[in-house]
Amino acid sequence: MNSLEVCYSPALFNFYKNKDAIVVVVDVLRATSSICTAFANGVSSIIPVESKEEALSYKNKDFVIAAERDGLILDFADLGNSPYNFSEELVRGKNVVYSTTNGTKTIQTAASESKAVVIGAFSNITALTEWLITQNTPVVILCAGWKNRYNIEDTVFAGALSERLLTTELYKSICDSTSAAVDMWNNHKSNLRKLIDTCAQRERLRKNKLDDCIDYCLTNDTCPVVPLFNGTALINLSST
Amino acid sequence: MNSLEVCYSPALFNFYKNKDAIVVVVDVLRATSSICTAFANGVSSIIPVESKEEALSYKNKDFVIAAERDGLILDFADLGNSPYNFSEELVRGKNVVYSTTNGTKTIQTAASESKAVVIGAFSNITALTEWLITQNTPVVILCAGWKNRYNIEDTVFAGALSERLLTTELYKSICDSTSAAVDMWNNHKSNLRKLIDTCAQRERLRKNKLDDCIDYCLTNDTCPVVPLFNGTALINLSST
Repeated sequence: MNSLEVCYSPALFNFYKNKDAIVVVVDVLRATSSICTAFANGVSSIIPVESKEEALSYKNKDFVIAAERDGLILDFADLGNSPYNFSEELVRGKNVVYSTTNGTKTIQTAASESKAVVIGAFSNITALTEWLITQNTPVVILCAGWKNRYNIEDTVFAGALSERLLTTELYKSICDSTSAAVDMWNNHKSNLRKLIDTCAQRERLRKNKLDDCIDYCLTNDTCPVVPLFNGTALINLSST
Repeated sequence: MNSLEVCYSPALFNFYKNKDAIVVVVDVLRATSSICTAFANGVSSIIPVESKEEALSYKNKDFVIAAERDGLILDFADLGNSPYNFSEELVRGKNVVYSTTNGTKTIQTAASESKAVVIGAFSNITALTEWLITQNTPVVILCAGWKNRYNIEDTVFAGALSERLLTTELYKSICDSTSAAVDMWNNHKSNLRKLIDTCAQRERLRKNKLDDCIDYCLTNDTCPVVPLFNGTALINLSST
């Protein structure tokens, strides 16, 4: 039996980290849903960078730059953070440099203290679950949250993924955050959109007219991909 | 309208802190339930200290020393961390020095960045709610958790207290952790003991035969007290 834990904030990762674990980074609205979409649309690689300055340094070097802060595209960037930005036309065969408010930093935090880092969202939940089961290792689901605060959309996805993993009986959890996430998922899975409509990020996206992608981000298996961080860039473990 | 937020770990307090807020520190199993019990039984003051060494430095100086680590009483201490330890016979009129795994550090963290720090538990929920309402300030409910990890018993209490405050319409919350805590409370309030029996701290207490106090710690209003941290010690704002 492998351990399964959920960590609700990058700022708590130090208390959940496990060198033997695969870390699943989650930022459902919208970074990890967008990353899955980009791979489903044939992107070659995605380089996560933390600072605006680092993103800008790739300008005019044959990279596509995706960069946002607080949901809004930065002026020098080619793309923002909506999954709809990562169309096949714009990303197939390209290398994308990606900087976001929460997701990028989370990937880098996780990579330093784990066996491997992969990307999770409702978009790739089945492909990801199947791949994790083949790995036979402990799993830590790391929610990106919002500026290190807890958020509901990442928690409920962590619950959905945890339930699938626990059902296999290859994993066990004595972790309260896993129990609470599974409980949230079971209480709200029949009307996930209603839950998400109450959460803080929903309101942020609405204010910026960026809420058109919410139903897409809550839909299972739009993208049969497993994005893995290789230390420098995200690459797709499954062919599309 | 005053803001109401719930912070799930002392390690996240930096992202929820508010100089204008009253912070309610929560460590239901067992520190804050024990503190309320001590005041209900007439203790004069409780000095929270972080290290074992600091607790030991008060030995033989006319203080009662309560000190535990991982639930177990330390050898030099007079009392452990069970509310049953703080009997009227042992504490009335005394000054207690108190060092615990999670609770003490949390009080000190909160005190440095807030308007005031008070102690919350099911034991004093009505007295605390009534006092908070008279203060007309923002409130941050700070869960002690377990070694900086999220825990269910503090979250569900945060949900119970949040629901009482939000019902007054003096508070508003756009905080996902508050919404999730209220949701947990509403889903489990009809059988709180069943929820607590699934949580990690329940198992730790059982292993150490320290689980006799759980029903007591889940009972409302056994202690009509409001313990306030005055910068050095906890004192009782309500006479008993």
